[in-house]
Amino acid sequence: MKSALSQLSRRTPEPAISWLMKLTLDHPKLISLAAGFTDSASLPVDDVRAVLDDVLASPRRGRPALQYGSTVGDTTLREMTAEHVRKCDGSKDATSYAVARTIITSGSQQLLYMTTEALCDPGDIVLVEDPTYFVYLGITQSHALRCRGVKLDADGINLAHLDQVLAELKRTGELRRVKLLYLVSYFQNPTGRTTSFTKKQAALELLRRYERAAGHPIYLLEDAAYRELRFSGDDERSALAAGFDGRVIYTGTYSKPFATGARVGFGILPLEIFSAIARIKGNHDFGTANLLQQLLAHALSTGAYDRHLPILRQRYAAKALRMTAAIRKHFPAEVKWAQPRGGLYFWAQLPARVKSGAKSKLFQTALRRDVLYVPGELCYCGDAARRKPNHEMRISFGGAKDRDIPRGIERLGAVLRAMS
Amino acid sequence: MKSALSQLSRRTPEPAISWLMKLTLDHPKLISLAAGFTDSASLPVDDVRAVLDDVLASPRRGRPALQYGSTVGDTTLREMTAEHVRKCDGSKDATSYAVARTIITSGSQQLLYMTTEALCDPGDIVLVEDPTYFVYLGITQSHALRCRGVKLDADGINLAHLDQVLAELKRTGELRRVKLLYLVSYFQNPTGRTTSFTKKQAALELLRRYERAAGHPIYLLEDAAYRELRFSGDDERSALAAGFDGRVIYTGTYSKPFATGARVGFGILPLEIFSAIARIKGNHDFGTANLLQQLLAHALSTGAYDRHLPILRQRYAAKALRMTAAIRKHFPAEVKWAQPRGGLYFWAQLPARVKSGAKSKLFQTALRRDVLYVPGELCYCGDAARRKPNHEMRISFGGAKDRDIPRGIERLGAVLRAMS
Repeated sequence: MKSALSQLSRRTPEPAISWLMKLTLDHPKLISLAAGFTDSASLPVDDVRAVLDDVLASPRRGRPALQYGSTVGDTTLREMTAEHVRKCDGSKDATSYAVARTIITSGSQQLLYMTTEALCDPGDIVLVEDPTYFVYLGITQSHALRCRGVKLDADGINLAHLDQVLAELKRTGELRRVKLLYLVSYFQNPTGRTTSFTKKQAALELLRRYERAAGHPIYLLEDAAYRELRFSGDDERSALAAGFDGRVIYTGTYSKPFATGARVGFGILPLEIFSAIARIKGNHDFGTANLLQQLLAHALSTGAYDRHLPILRQRYAAKALRMTAAIRKHFPAEVKWAQPRGGLYFWAQLPARVKSGAKSKLFQTALRRDVLYVPGELCYCGDAARRKPNHEMRISFGGAKDRDIPRGIERLGAVLRAMS
Repeated sequence: MKSALSQLSRRTPEPAISWLMKLTLDHPKLISLAAGFTDSASLPVDDVRAVLDDVLASPRRGRPALQYGSTVGDTTLREMTAEHVRKCDGSKDATSYAVARTIITSGSQQLLYMTTEALCDPGDIVLVEDPTYFVYLGITQSHALRCRGVKLDADGINLAHLDQVLAELKRTGELRRVKLLYLVSYFQNPTGRTTSFTKKQAALELLRRYERAAGHPIYLLEDAAYRELRFSGDDERSALAAGFDGRVIYTGTYSKPFATGARVGFGILPLEIFSAIARIKGNHDFGTANLLQQLLAHALSTGAYDRHLPILRQRYAAKALRMTAAIRKHFPAEVKWAQPRGGLYFWAQLPARVKSGAKSKLFQTALRRDVLYVPGELCYCGDAARRKPNHEMRISFGGAKDRDIPRGIERLGAVLRAMS
């Protein structure tokens, strides 16, 4: 008898994260520089405890926090979220950051999923950074989408290449299948790079130029998951501030900057997309857990959230510095890397002859020496226009313990030197 | 310029629940007997507060509760969940209730969604009760599935009709598109009826008989959302206990019997389905909020959950009794209804000439008199083999305040008497 599984099931392989986690469990002495976990030591346990106690002790808030809410989320949290992002952008534009466009989701991951469902049919094309967030690639694969990779420079997407890819799709008549450009715009997963506001603006202009030939809007899906994890300096404005009303799908999260285990994410969306996603979310779960939304609303309104941010930033900055020092000391000079200014990741580029994939000698040797990284090839979409680069690695300092950062890098450096 | 929305978006209309909620907001004096909310007065606010305080105060549990977890859920909660369901079934069969088959989800709604994704392609057929849970019908519509309604008797699905529907699908060569039979088996939404264990067993036998012609397994998707909300008496065994290993997809939830606003649901699945859904969930959200899972695990292990259940049951039993008395007093004799033995709903059948749909005189008059019910027609799938019945209503005592139950029923009774 055959299996009854759907095409979507058959297109959805075991995600890389699962076998990476399994490797971690199978090697008890392993130092994982692969996991995208947040820093456990700085999780706001006391804050969350106090906030939840407050919410549940309140005669006005306690019961509603344990009741169903509405599909698009708690109104107060939506208001605070819209206002929070508007302030980050230093904008006075009320329309682009309207509460009526703001939705609360189960992590920003859920919003990436539902955005795909809302916009993309099998065979549709999405443009992604080369490299990009690998779980997003998993979503595109399961939905039978085609991806085109756009080169990534130090300050974000390569505009000339974006233009070239769009022009080629126009020439081949496939522009009508292009739905969106996906950018992980702040301290990108996996490279740590940030797309400048100027580039976002220019990308939006480019997309608009091709819309006529596409016959429909081409959206910029801005994934700002790491936005608030910057170590210092000014915030880059989001694409919402670029004045392309109705073309920006902005996704953010409270998981990374505050309570990871609460998994509260959000989106600020063009009205048509908001409406579609609200309808879709009605089928997924008719609303994210209200208790978690009340936790976040209260953490924002009492200032607990804002008080926690500088602590977190300092902590990640220190961990990144620790990793920088270790890499300087232990990595061969031919490995290229840059010190990130936020987020959780370093991106290391090896000489092209040194393969880094899961089946490579490098990966297997590193595993035997009890250190794990994310092979760079996992972060590249399938794109017939180029071969997947296979000589890079994502190294995370986010979840690793302080003492494990230099130890893990030392092990990895030893393996790299032996390969060079 | 055209819209860029996907086919799925276009197939996903505003859910009924949204306009019912909007009506509630637009009519401030309205008594809603439509909402499927749980009873706010008995929500375990103090229990949840104490449990969360315990979890977050613990050096061992606090930080992990605020970190990411694994996609399929916390191992301890999965163990306790599998054990909980096994005990409810009074079974000694370890295989059917294995931890390795148990997944934690964001409400059982998410599991209904992912099960559909895992098994069904557009055009596939699912068998549902006539009537059934309307949000499930929303999922089937958005995924372009075809539904066939199976008659529902007082003790559950009509087996002769199930056989007839399957035979007809075999005759027309469409059996290979049939993926599952969906049963809301305990105190059903919307009718309040329970499917006997004997009938579940017989349904599984019937499905198996047609598998050969289908060429693949036909699953029984058992939605046990209301299972623990029984007022008294013995528990009916679930389909897991029927000995059809690998054919039962069991979904349950902790939202209704405990902390609604935490939205923790679960499933016990055949291994192949478990694996597919785990992969799909990796793309949806890579795991339900860990903080909520720790809340439930601790509530189960400390006994807070078990201590709350009898309180809840007594409370719902009293509300149902209150509604029974009011219906007896105010409804015309020609309205048929039965006293539920659990759950949140009454189902009232009017004479066939009295239409109850959203556009009916009855519904509109009731709305003017400030009382809301769920029109029965919303709970029927589109099925060419019959017209949608349009003379029934779902009346909920779950979320209504004590004093509003007799007042709401009195208003509804007055409208019904005026129509009769």
